[in-house]
Amino acid sequence: MGLFSKDIKTLGDLFLHQLQDIYYAENEITKALPKMIVKATDPQLKQGFKTHLAETENHIRRLEQVFKMMGEAPKKVNCPAIDGIIEEAEDVTGDVANKSVLDAALIASGQAVEHYEMTRYGTLIAWAKQLGRDDAARLLQETLGEEQATDKKLTVMAESNVNVRAA
Amino acid sequence: MGLFSKDIKTLGDLFLHQLQDIYYAENEITKALPKMIVKATDPQLKQGFKTHLAETENHIRRLEQVFKMMGEAPKKVNCPAIDGIIEEAEDVTGDVANKSVLDAALIASGQAVEHYEMTRYGTLIAWAKQLGRDDAARLLQETLGEEQATDKKLTVMAESNVNVRAA
Repeated sequence: MGLFSKDIKTLGDLFLHQLQDIYYAENEITKALPKMIVKATDPQLKQGFKTHLAETENHIRRLEQVFKMMGEAPKKVNCPAIDGIIEEAEDVTGDVANKSVLDAALIASGQAVEHYEMTRYGTLIAWAKQLGRDDAARLLQETLGEEQATDKKLTVMAESNVNVRAA
Repeated sequence: MGLFSKDIKTLGDLFLHQLQDIYYAENEITKALPKMIVKATDPQLKQGFKTHLAETENHIRRLEQVFKMMGEAPKKVNCPAIDGIIEEAEDVTGDVANKSVLDAALIASGQAVEHYEMTRYGTLIAWAKQLGRDDAARLLQETLGEEQATDKKLTVMAESNVNVRAA
């Protein structure tokens, strides 16, 4: 188990706790995405989720590098936020029969996951810089850029043909 | 209770379900913010949360207007995502003694809430337009603008003195 909040005394502790939180979250996302790939019916959406699964596996490797930079072993801490976001995604996409409506729900779920990651990486980058760890900030920035790009692709799909067909 | 996912057949059903989800979330946020106001030590952060609480109450009124536009009574549906985000915020800010570190954790928690709202409102606006409900989209856009502004203010605080003092 990772750092408990009662053990957080410095910004360095808070950074490590948040790193353990997103490490847990990224690992959970690699379990959720294969189910979303199976459910997606639009080929472009299915491919988008597949590409993001490969990226997510790379994000886990990058987080392991950041742990190493900080002289820490990679650990996870429970993250009720990502658990809730994934639970909600599985709930809302569980029983939708219409394919285009299902794709619309999957896009929305994907964007909720991306926004969670974007906020956490944004915070980690700000803290890494304040801790004088520009090396860690740079690695985390690479991942943030990919999360933002995935979110933008999903927005384009949400506003284009996928959802219009569901209307 | 709101619409269950098994009852979602059309994009209109999905829109209504998401509206019930964010209606629940906004109501939960009005319960969480007063606790964050009490915990915040930086006067600017404390005031920022107070301003956002007033805005959130207005977001609830706007959602009630959107329900009315759609010919529906305002209802909530369980939202495990916001439950998880708030649970995590309360956990991570629960036992931090250092005031500046606590403020840094509160800013991060506030941004996680804002990002959840931003993704949900973004989705609702896209769906409202596809449903030909530009009237609803306009109202939802007003709220999205306020959420984005709050997130930006928190980013400025995260990158400025509040966190530097925690380092």
